[in-house]
Amino acid sequence: MLEAFMLAGASGTRRSRGEPCADILKTVTFPVVGIIGGGQLARMTHEAGIPLGVRFKLLSDTPQDSAAQVVGDVVIGDYRDLETLRAFARGCDVITFDHEHVPTAHLLALEADGVAVRPGPAALVHAQDKGVMRARLDEIGVPCPRHRIVADPADVVRFAEEGMQGGVVGAGSGVVGAGSGVVGAGSGFPVVLKTVRGGYDGKGVWIVGSAEEAGDAFRAGVPVLAEEKVDFVRELAANVVRSPHGQAVAYPVVESIQVNGVCDTVIAPAPGLDGESAALAQRLALTIAKELGVVGHLAVELFETRNDDGTTGLLVNELAMRPHNSGHWTQDGAITSQFANHLRAVLDLPLGDPRPRAKWTVMANVLGGDYPNMYGAFLHCMARDPQLKIHMYGKDVKPGRKVGHVNTYGDDLSEVRARARHAADYLRGTIDE
Amino acid sequence: MLEAFMLAGASGTRRSRGEPCADILKTVTFPVVGIIGGGQLARMTHEAGIPLGVRFKLLSDTPQDSAAQVVGDVVIGDYRDLETLRAFARGCDVITFDHEHVPTAHLLALEADGVAVRPGPAALVHAQDKGVMRARLDEIGVPCPRHRIVADPADVVRFAEEGMQGGVVGAGSGVVGAGSGVVGAGSGFPVVLKTVRGGYDGKGVWIVGSAEEAGDAFRAGVPVLAEEKVDFVRELAANVVRSPHGQAVAYPVVESIQVNGVCDTVIAPAPGLDGESAALAQRLALTIAKELGVVGHLAVELFETRNDDGTTGLLVNELAMRPHNSGHWTQDGAITSQFANHLRAVLDLPLGDPRPRAKWTVMANVLGGDYPNMYGAFLHCMARDPQLKIHMYGKDVKPGRKVGHVNTYGDDLSEVRARARHAADYLRGTIDE
Repeated sequence: MLEAFMLAGASGTRRSRGEPCADILKTVTFPVVGIIGGGQLARMTHEAGIPLGVRFKLLSDTPQDSAAQVVGDVVIGDYRDLETLRAFARGCDVITFDHEHVPTAHLLALEADGVAVRPGPAALVHAQDKGVMRARLDEIGVPCPRHRIVADPADVVRFAEEGMQGGVVGAGSGVVGAGSGVVGAGSGFPVVLKTVRGGYDGKGVWIVGSAEEAGDAFRAGVPVLAEEKVDFVRELAANVVRSPHGQAVAYPVVESIQVNGVCDTVIAPAPGLDGESAALAQRLALTIAKELGVVGHLAVELFETRNDDGTTGLLVNELAMRPHNSGHWTQDGAITSQFANHLRAVLDLPLGDPRPRAKWTVMANVLGGDYPNMYGAFLHCMARDPQLKIHMYGKDVKPGRKVGHVNTYGDDLSEVRARARHAADYLRGTIDE
Repeated sequence: MLEAFMLAGASGTRRSRGEPCADILKTVTFPVVGIIGGGQLARMTHEAGIPLGVRFKLLSDTPQDSAAQVVGDVVIGDYRDLETLRAFARGCDVITFDHEHVPTAHLLALEADGVAVRPGPAALVHAQDKGVMRARLDEIGVPCPRHRIVADPADVVRFAEEGMQGGVVGAGSGVVGAGSGVVGAGSGFPVVLKTVRGGYDGKGVWIVGSAEEAGDAFRAGVPVLAEEKVDFVRELAANVVRSPHGQAVAYPVVESIQVNGVCDTVIAPAPGLDGESAALAQRLALTIAKELGVVGHLAVELFETRNDDGTTGLLVNELAMRPHNSGHWTQDGAITSQFANHLRAVLDLPLGDPRPRAKWTVMANVLGGDYPNMYGAFLHCMARDPQLKIHMYGKDVKPGRKVGHVNTYGDDLSEVRARARHAADYLRGTIDE
């Protein structure tokens, strides 16, 4: 596989076309992309890869996983087992991810074997370990909430008191020009505690008001990061894609509305965000992608804050190095989707145009509710809104589980948003009519 | 499978929501769509089905076929064998097609077994047998080129002479209001001969100037249809989708440019086509879909002619009852693609909005050339045009074979068309730069 890919790459320069290739080359020389993880991100990446003609191999926990249902070449195996990963990688020209849970040591071993891992472990560790991420963002001057690793509940109290004193703010205002450093001042409890590894969608995160409440966070024995609870105006996301070549594209900055710690609605572009702040958020994300050596899609989740002088501040909340929920709107709302661009980056192909195709695009997540029959709800939703774009993940319905999303687009934000809301609520079963 | 689907359908009315369903129903009740034929149309239908959450089963000749590369659940088998079809259908809630070659008798047998076949054999026979198609279109008053079944080369001469006499024109000007009946007048040789079954992309078609040249068409022993060679201005296609419910949508009428009998470029909408003619073409296609009982996508290939009084005439050339090359532009140029709407029709779901998303969309087919390495050409094409949409089929390159297509869209037709032309030519290897 690798050889065919190398030939493709070599001939791909097309510097000397010369004679038509020999018959032996008249086979498909398209690369094989291996995706680790069988979730909906792999499913939608496969969907985006079909037009590119690339071949997919999937490493999935079970044959029932979201992506395993729709990919032809599926290996069932445990991504935590190095030999499983090695066997999987042998049939692939490049490896990428549905999730960030593959142990860093395994990825380093694969790289040592000569496997192209994108994003590579040196970048990916920043999306796996919140402690490493915060330390690195501090280094490169990216504004973050005040933070430090805490040892125990008593240390959490000290962290809160440091905030009361208007003490050290973790973030510099350096190279990227954002963050005034005033946000941390005056904050004490509540404090946000996060295990540095293993959390997602609100799991592994605690908001605590006292030493007593802080106990849970330390129970797993994983290092704990304390962060000030930022008094934000709203949450934004800056999505960028970067190729090994160093080419990068930035999508419009979006507003991300969370409910119970889970992404609920995304509005593209973020309504009312001034051009300067939007450009700053994009620059922040591009800087992070470059400095951390990210290959593929990078989602930078941001807090938008209001400074004392009324200006907008931006603080980095989380990073994700894969297609991300805040970029699902691009499937129907951008010229090139995040999934297509992630693949193009992973393959070191020139990136596609990230610009929007509509004035407003809204994504609403479909969470599992009490009514399992989402297919039945298609009838009403499709008849009511012939422009609605439904994206289902093939997952069994469980209350609160992300099982799909809808996209709507148009010129009138309130109408576009209402259509997305209605469809998501109807699919879930929250509303009837 | 069928049972789950029936439950989905029943619960789908959502007339009484009542209590949450029992746990036994908390499994995915999404239907299984079986596609017969592993070509690029099945591949792209699968791609469009992923967001709908429906499951696919594919009956493919080989594991290397275009769709077999990307679908998870593939059965390798011969669609000409009834027992193979029966076994395949048992795992499906509905059957649809990548091509029109399944014997009518087999489809009737499947229907007798209770299998949902969409489009059904009674409709599909009109896309399989040009003799049946012409007879039926005559009956419902759809304008066609002058035509009749011919017995032998001498009969072809008589057919040509009938044309010289301005004789019987096969088409009425009836219910759909098109066709002035004057087109046939004055035509003699050349005559177009078509085997009534088995032809596509210029195969099974002869343009003959004499009795001697007519011999080849009769050699296969298949009935031969003679048609006047229409002096057309250009070729158009009217694409519509119809559901079992009777709902139908019409895409904008497109211009289809053929080279050597193979579709080369499609322009949506057809430039300069007056609104009346466009509406007439759509009405023709909707009428045919209804009268023939089509379920799914119907492509009506049309000749645009110029009447003696300068007005536009329309004659039906061919029908296809499946997604069609003239509808590939909808993947990137319409709100709902032909593939998504074909699936929605086959599943009797409400149809999606067929309107265009751009002022102009151009599709150019990528044919195999002498240079097999199309992946290598991605670098240049993607870098040159970040808005370019490439759709590859995973097929080995053979000269003249359709191996992919590109879509471009924008406000300036000549620019949009030039971009598509460049990309298709560069991928093929016709141009270098």
